[in-house]
Amino acid sequence: MYSFQNDYSEGAHPRILKALVESNLVQTEGYGLDPYSQQATEILKQRLGNQNVDIHFLMGGTQANIVALSAFLKPYEAVISTHEGHIYTHEAGSIEATGHKVISIYSQNGKLDVQMIDKVVKEHHGDDHMVIPRLVYISNSTELGTNYTKQELVALREYCNAHDLLLYMDGARLGAALTSTRNDVAFADLCNLFDAFYIGATKTGAFNGEAVVIVNDSLKPNFRRNIRQHGAMVAKSKTIAIQFIELFKDELYLKLASHSNKMSAMIKQGFIDAGYSLFIDSFTNQQFPIIPNQLLAKFDEKYLTSIWCPYDENHTVIRFVTSWATKEANVLELIEDMKKFKE
Amino acid sequence: MYSFQNDYSEGAHPRILKALVESNLVQTEGYGLDPYSQQATEILKQRLGNQNVDIHFLMGGTQANIVALSAFLKPYEAVISTHEGHIYTHEAGSIEATGHKVISIYSQNGKLDVQMIDKVVKEHHGDDHMVIPRLVYISNSTELGTNYTKQELVALREYCNAHDLLLYMDGARLGAALTSTRNDVAFADLCNLFDAFYIGATKTGAFNGEAVVIVNDSLKPNFRRNIRQHGAMVAKSKTIAIQFIELFKDELYLKLASHSNKMSAMIKQGFIDAGYSLFIDSFTNQQFPIIPNQLLAKFDEKYLTSIWCPYDENHTVIRFVTSWATKEANVLELIEDMKKFKE
Amino acid sequence: MYSFQNDYSEGAHPRILKALVESNLVQTEGYGLDPYSQQATEILKQRLGNQNVDIHFLMGGTQANIVALSAFLKPYEAVISTHEGHIYTHEAGSIEATGHKVISIYSQNGKLDVQMIDKVVKEHHGDDHMVIPRLVYISNSTELGTNYTKQELVALREYCNAHDLLLYMDGARLGAALTSTRNDVAFADLCNLFDAFYIGATKTGAFNGEAVVIVNDSLKPNFRRNIRQHGAMVAKSKTIAIQFIELFKDELYLKLASHSNKMSAMIKQGFIDAGYSLFIDSFTNQQFPIIPNQLLAKFDEKYLTSIWCPYDENHTVIRFVTSWATKEANVLELIEDMKKFKE
Amino acid sequence: MYSFQNDYSEGAHPRILKALVESNLVQTEGYGLDPYSQQATEILKQRLGNQNVDIHFLMGGTQANIVALSAFLKPYEAVISTHEGHIYTHEAGSIEATGHKVISIYSQNGKLDVQMIDKVVKEHHGDDHMVIPRLVYISNSTELGTNYTKQELVALREYCNAHDLLLYMDGARLGAALTSTRNDVAFADLCNLFDAFYIGATKTGAFNGEAVVIVNDSLKPNFRRNIRQHGAMVAKSKTIAIQFIELFKDELYLKLASHSNKMSAMIKQGFIDAGYSLFIDSFTNQQFPIIPNQLLAKFDEKYLTSIWCPYDENHTVIRFVTSWATKEANVLELIEDMKKFKE
Repeated sequence: MYSFQNDYSEGAHPRILKALVESNLVQTEGYGLDPYSQQATEILKQRLGNQNVDIHFLMGGTQANIVALSAFLKPYEAVISTHEGHIYTHEAGSIEATGHKVISIYSQNGKLDVQMIDKVVKEHHGDDHMVIPRLVYISNSTELGTNYTKQELVALREYCNAHDLLLYMDGARLGAALTSTRNDVAFADLCNLFDAFYIGATKTGAFNGEAVVIVNDSLKPNFRRNIRQHGAMVAKSKTIAIQFIELFKDELYLKLASHSNKMSAMIKQGFIDAGYSLFIDSFTNQQFPIIPNQLLAKFDEKYLTSIWCPYDENHTVIRFVTSWATKEANVLELIEDMKKFKE
Repeated sequence: MYSFQNDYSEGAHPRILKALVESNLVQTEGYGLDPYSQQATEILKQRLGNQNVDIHFLMGGTQANIVALSAFLKPYEAVISTHEGHIYTHEAGSIEATGHKVISIYSQNGKLDVQMIDKVVKEHHGDDHMVIPRLVYISNSTELGTNYTKQELVALREYCNAHDLLLYMDGARLGAALTSTRNDVAFADLCNLFDAFYIGATKTGAFNGEAVVIVNDSLKPNFRRNIRQHGAMVAKSKTIAIQFIELFKDELYLKLASHSNKMSAMIKQGFIDAGYSLFIDSFTNQQFPIIPNQLLAKFDEKYLTSIWCPYDENHTVIRFVTSWATKEANVLELIEDMKKFKE
Repeated sequence: MYSFQNDYSEGAHPRILKALVESNLVQTEGYGLDPYSQQATEILKQRLGNQNVDIHFLMGGTQANIVALSAFLKPYEAVISTHEGHIYTHEAGSIEATGHKVISIYSQNGKLDVQMIDKVVKEHHGDDHMVIPRLVYISNSTELGTNYTKQELVALREYCNAHDLLLYMDGARLGAALTSTRNDVAFADLCNLFDAFYIGATKTGAFNGEAVVIVNDSLKPNFRRNIRQHGAMVAKSKTIAIQFIELFKDELYLKLASHSNKMSAMIKQGFIDAGYSLFIDSFTNQQFPIIPNQLLAKFDEKYLTSIWCPYDENHTVIRFVTSWATKEANVLELIEDMKKFKE
Repeated sequence: MYSFQNDYSEGAHPRILKALVESNLVQTEGYGLDPYSQQATEILKQRLGNQNVDIHFLMGGTQANIVALSAFLKPYEAVISTHEGHIYTHEAGSIEATGHKVISIYSQNGKLDVQMIDKVVKEHHGDDHMVIPRLVYISNSTELGTNYTKQELVALREYCNAHDLLLYMDGARLGAALTSTRNDVAFADLCNLFDAFYIGATKTGAFNGEAVVIVNDSLKPNFRRNIRQHGAMVAKSKTIAIQFIELFKDELYLKLASHSNKMSAMIKQGFIDAGYSLFIDSFTNQQFPIIPNQLLAKFDEKYLTSIWCPYDENHTVIRFVTSWATKEANVLELIEDMKKFKE
């Protein structure tokens, strides 16, 4: 059995392990006040081209979303997300648990656009029996493997500016987005586009670790208290910082993401060549082929994947995810298999 | 500078690092469903002498407390803690953030006893304008370095049984408690004493990791949803499980804790011999000497410690914490210094 | 100007005022422990044909929903509601503010059916990264003026039984539902259909007051603490109880609701006769005619109503609501006007 | 039996009833947008000597506290209150239920002073593992019947200014405070002293109603959404406004409060003359005599009161509360009885 079930099936990149071993017995303060956290912060500021951001290192993506969104919103303010948005469906009501409504919008391709948001904003306008939509949550790449173009993000930013909305990016798979062949967004653009976002490392070669970046000054004060309050402050914080330091040395982060996209593109082309249809046209590390139901058992015998949704009576959408550790040999074998299974 | 500031200044025990390296590229499911989590669960059940508990591996202690307490309580139910209890003072209002009052009790030695709890229970009895105290939170060892005897815990258990209270133990420093020279509690006792507790590893040799153990059947259902909701479900969950597996092989956990207690005992005796007074009589890995204020600068020049509280106009209580990684040479040097500083 | 804007534009029925005046200086305990609350409880139990329910008198409907739903649900449990459900749109995120997701379903006629609910239940089944849908919230009559038949409610009840769901009715306009010409549900049916519900009086002749009825034994314990915690316990509680006593004497409650339905039916017939279309076929006290935009100003000059939604480029849906106090003369004048405006 | 149990045992002052009857059938908008609410707001602004405040009419005091405090605080901010503060003990954890810690301070006389607050502020200073004390909650008159002098309030205000703290007054018994013989605070002072407060009417002659006054501009935006979210927005809002209009005509509010204080002073003097001790020296409408336990049954036979706390083995503190409706004849009878009971 080989797993294409997700991008966190394996551990950390060997360079990260090495860095952890080497620094292991160095005594440092904890809770983000260690020199490694300081160094990782400087590296990221450099990479983002912005010295004025606040950066906090957390363990996981759901945690990053909880801490950030609950910190940024007043009690009556709500979040706008796609219906497939991670916070809407797969975080067990975590944002609502902090008291905030998440207003969901159905989106075919997993992306939000200005028209969708504007409809929600208009519906809530001026009625003080309703929540105020205040923060737009997007994932890049999205839960459906798509990624935003710069033009799309600029349009969101301008709309948010005009309507007093915060724009937040869940960057669990930011690496996959930035190394997509359809991407034209650079690290240096991010601080001009978002009020806050996080750079995900768990799904790009780290054991764990997400860097929350706060651009908007008004969102910065006392953020550490919010982290603490949600149990998200890490005692041995240097262990996350060390991973980020390593990932942002020699572009390792982008190289690992690029590898996973490349493996994914091979799988995609394989499915096309073998005559399968795709549920969505993804250029990142997730692919959603439409599989005839009678072939499902064959795939399941050799490969771990996830059922995404039924497509029609006779077909099912399943998800293949690649990672920094996905081996080309296994991908090639899969490509052979998908042809063979159809015979 | 040598740090006695806390027990999470260093990384993980080398055996843990080795285990992480060896398992690194093994593909597994995530979110606690991996075989390592299964194995670690079996090992802990064995060690606790109870096959009927539920065990969940989380990243940190504050998280464990948040997830457990918010899962166990109805909206109008409250927690009883000492005023020094970690959840009361140093978790930034995390329990209140989940909607629950924490009723605090001043305790000289950091421990709760039946009389203290009974006073609170009586004050709240039968008045439906008040919260219902429902869960007794203790730390073992305590924030003041003391540890509970079996007799004390049995008394708490019996009181809780008689008054429909849950008894919960914060085991961030459980290793230090169980290896204290004043301890008579065994792993095998814990499931008879508590409705739930956690076994802390972050402060006993792991990078991170706490094992929440749920004994009371009524508290078990859907606990994973609570974990998820608080962002505490770990994608690469095997990394915690592997640490626990290693710590519970050859009694490593207790050996590491024992080492830190031994280092602490040497420091304690050193202070006594040098004519300092102690704020509290601790037999675990935290010591609280009372330092004349004019000597503070001398200590600060060579050692990182924490100021605990002012003692009187001329004295201050400072905290020395030892860990699995504390070196005897540094302890011996400290013992020399504490004498020298007084000359 | 005459107002058809809502059913709470006027004060209380004169008999209620009289009862309040007469009892004014009688000393009683407060917070629901007064003899009037006891008496009102007995009357309602009698009317519901169930001696085993718990009844609590609150001030308003949003409050009733907040207190009940937050009391009934565990942190990871969610509510299912229509997209037009009062709790979903017009209570400013009140349920989410208590930590619970509200999953909304679009419904043409404002009612939920088994198929709709089943789709949500299936989507959430067995995935512990998601919330558990646990409570079905319906309004009767609905926000669109429709009302449930007994058969529809029995179907919901049976589905809920089979899927471990709670069924809750928002009865803000229960009077209008039970006196609809299309109704076949009796007071005596309610306790067989719902785990809990509330009987609304604010919109049926009282100044304020809703009676929360808890049928399901498991939902009863300590409900008063939940009331208190949400600031919903009324100091001078007898003032609500007295209103209920009066409303349930000589069927006043149903008579007042019936009057408002009758006025509403006249308006409906008027619109039909005058050649207007109706957005929905309502048999309760709310009507939703589709008005040509060029006539809106004429209506607005003489009548206060609410804009419900745009219908198409040239038409708008507006809402006419009648109450116990709506005067037939004004209704007749409106009927003349709607014809005249078209000329 | 005559009740001195509380100041909400009776209904509303007859003038209020009359006003409610007269306005009963006037059609108005609801939810605070009616002309009566507008008029009551103007009257209160006039009375407070400040045209720049926002005023919102709510049903009850606990509700006012919940809505205001949860609106004013960021998630990691906490409230400082006395241990006897209504929000700390008798609101069933309502503030914690909105996510905020209430830090309590023991106070002999029910009042907070600068030294007490400063201790808490210092303990929390600069440690981002702790909450930030942000709002000082006082009651005037206090839960123990004492009331603040202007000098005391000015000192609190100045401390709050210097330490970035909000100062909030629970005015459930503001009438009793302002008409105390020991009072030197005027309505016109309040906006200079507090960031926000509420003027209580439920305990001063109304059926229900509290006017929340927001002075600090930064606390004003979108407050109505907070009201709505907590179910505290009143459909027939004019019913509260009409009560305030009546109470602030011809100083009725102060006259009613003054009457209750006068009745209370007679009771106090009676106890002193009869040789009883007082637990506290109150000049408002609550008295706390220390009653020999063997006399308790005699009091209980004729009078409803509340047990406050045990005083010593042989004595109990009980509470006598007077109201606008307390009859002098009953007070005189009580005074006779307290002498008689001792014989």
